[in-house]
Amino acid sequence: MYAVTVRDHFMIAHSFRGETFGPAQSLHGATYVVDVEFRRAALDPDYVVVDIGKASGIVKAVLNELNFSNLDAAPEFEGDNTTTEFLARTVFEKIRACISTGDLGKHADGLASLKVTLHESHIAWASYEGDL
Amino acid sequence: MYAVTVRDHFMIAHSFRGETFGPAQSLHGATYVVDVEFRRAALDPDYVVVDIGKASGIVKAVLNELNFSNLDAAPEFEGDNTTTEFLARTVFEKIRACISTGDLGKHADGLASLKVTLHESHIAWASYEGDL
Amino acid sequence: MYAVTVRDHFMIAHSFRGETFGPAQSLHGATYVVDVEFRRAALDPDYVVVDIGKASGIVKAVLNELNFSNLDAAPEFEGDNTTTEFLARTVFEKIRACISTGDLGKHADGLASLKVTLHESHIAWASYEGDL
Amino acid sequence: MYAVTVRDHFMIAHSFRGETFGPAQSLHGATYVVDVEFRRAALDPDYVVVDIGKASGIVKAVLNELNFSNLDAAPEFEGDNTTTEFLARTVFEKIRACISTGDLGKHADGLASLKVTLHESHIAWASYEGDL
Amino acid sequence: MYAVTVRDHFMIAHSFRGETFGPAQSLHGATYVVDVEFRRAALDPDYVVVDIGKASGIVKAVLNELNFSNLDAAPEFEGDNTTTEFLARTVFEKIRACISTGDLGKHADGLASLKVTLHESHIAWASYEGDL
Amino acid sequence: MYAVTVRDHFMIAHSFRGETFGPAQSLHGATYVVDVEFRRAALDPDYVVVDIGKASGIVKAVLNELNFSNLDAAPEFEGDNTTTEFLARTVFEKIRACISTGDLGKHADGLASLKVTLHESHIAWASYEGDL
Repeated sequence: MYAVTVRDHFMIAHSFRGETFGPAQSLHGATYVVDVEFRRAALDPDYVVVDIGKASGIVKAVLNELNFSNLDAAPEFEGDNTTTEFLARTVFEKIRACISTGDLGKHADGLASLKVTLHESHIAWASYEGDL
Repeated sequence: MYAVTVRDHFMIAHSFRGETFGPAQSLHGATYVVDVEFRRAALDPDYVVVDIGKASGIVKAVLNELNFSNLDAAPEFEGDNTTTEFLARTVFEKIRACISTGDLGKHADGLASLKVTLHESHIAWASYEGDL
Repeated sequence: MYAVTVRDHFMIAHSFRGETFGPAQSLHGATYVVDVEFRRAALDPDYVVVDIGKASGIVKAVLNELNFSNLDAAPEFEGDNTTTEFLARTVFEKIRACISTGDLGKHADGLASLKVTLHESHIAWASYEGDL
Repeated sequence: MYAVTVRDHFMIAHSFRGETFGPAQSLHGATYVVDVEFRRAALDPDYVVVDIGKASGIVKAVLNELNFSNLDAAPEFEGDNTTTEFLARTVFEKIRACISTGDLGKHADGLASLKVTLHESHIAWASYEGDL
Repeated sequence: MYAVTVRDHFMIAHSFRGETFGPAQSLHGATYVVDVEFRRAALDPDYVVVDIGKASGIVKAVLNELNFSNLDAAPEFEGDNTTTEFLARTVFEKIRACISTGDLGKHADGLASLKVTLHESHIAWASYEGDL
Repeated sequence: MYAVTVRDHFMIAHSFRGETFGPAQSLHGATYVVDVEFRRAALDPDYVVVDIGKASGIVKAVLNELNFSNLDAAPEFEGDNTTTEFLARTVFEKIRACISTGDLGKHADGLASLKVTLHESHIAWASYEGDL
């Protein structure tokens, strides 16, 4: 299995609901350094997993939808706790949607799976992975 | 599949037995930077893989059993070579035991697997992963 | 010159005022990974720059004053842009105050200077350094 | 499953063919920081996944075949685009060959699989993994 | 003293002249991960060392002059060994020129000094720093 | 001012004397990831700060004197607390001695200063710097 990963980041405000979260129930924020891993069994005719220019562009576009925002005020997350693991899934689904609409080019139909990792600090990170 | 990882460290003295180990047969030591990854298929009702406060606490407690010690003098490791890969398994088993006794809370029964990675330097690390 | 550095982090919400900041004028947030470097010309009688346990404790206490908060709502920052460089200075001053009140122990009077670095992402960081 | 990873690097010149690559069609170069992960289900009699001295030596020998060269002039890559993912596979195959000829010692027949990751920058990396 | 650092990278081919360089006398290449640190004694009216958007843009523009090229074929480097330390100075001078022509905005006249670090691998890097 | 840094590591056992050290008074150990920075005002005739091959060789030789040992049993450290900051100074002095005896070649007389940093974990490091 081949894989290619690109890294980018976004910065948001949010808060959590539930005693589990202790002081993180207050409005605070985070920088998420994001690794998006694209996987496939065989390389495409250009010898790549994915056009890395297109892939980086899509990742940036997806993260820009979230960057510099307060997730507590976003209708799409109403009723949700926007934990790191939940946001990893959110980014995964947005990138999957871009792939299915052809934004990564015609060879992207060979992609098998995707893994999205969000680093919230130097001592904690979360990921979501799934098939395409 | 979702995953959450927390990082901590411990510092020990030890030596190895066997010609394979060359100069590492002498008493020396290591800092192990430890990544513990918790995995599950679906998030719990709080939208998390695990209560990260409880998880960090358990990892610290497990590593404190080893921290600032000479493993050569520990009865639990008598007759063993305490290699990085062996210690990754040791930490794995200790955390698995904590989970099974309920230290991570009631939702921890949804955890599927665990991966423990020990970094011994900037150029070498080892891991052990298994189902729960 | 000797130096010892300890790393910790804090997570906040804030926004900036001024066209320079573009989309960062909206409420968003950041994780700051913080490196605090203590410097002195000669080691103390224990052969250390600073009691690292006390130093780590003070850094954590100072960062906890900011952690999990919305800086826009903090009276101490009213009228300020809480940029990374401004916050590096803020953390510097808070730690300097702790040192001057003796929280780092009697040998801390040998400390010469301090440098505080805040990493806001994998591609940007800021620092403030000064004499004690 | 146990795993041990060792890190090394190599530096090469090359160019790519195809419009997909844009300005990277010109002769340029890269440093590849290489992580080679060896995996097995059970430790060998010395309590290791692999003799790390032998493993590091083999990785260095394999990378030295490529280090300080222009891949465009290498007969072995004639007609190929030497992308990061392609080179990850190349390094994988060379290490697999070393294992099969016994360079890692007699216990290496317990190795189950191998993963090779090449980091081309702080924001992009690629890997190839497969069974042995 | 305040400082702000931004990170970017470029990828080039080159070779060195002189026995000192051993096998690096052959055509090869490198990825340089570049940290550019801007320093000043007091913050500007926006509470920043430099407009980080403008600073990142200038760094990218300067590195793009070198990116995806063969330095051996560049007239500007004829007769030079394009070592990491030499290239750190080169990037320093190019950014200094941008500052002096006003590309960083009117407040940039408060900048005191600059440091440019080029990381050539995980085990080697070089820098050049100087006053503005 | 130019600088070149090379990274290597060593692994030792030791213990500390004094209540300040708490549980670190027991025999334990550490991996030290070591950065040695060489500085000079002008490049040598080869356009380098130092012959990086020779420099890496000297650093490895110096660290090998300490690697895989128990510092508590080393006559050279009798009566000393081998703290990270003390060891940074120790490595500094050993490398300074190598330079003064000509091990870095004839151009090394242009070196102005040296900085040695020892990373003991992902959250703590110490350094010693001085003129040559």
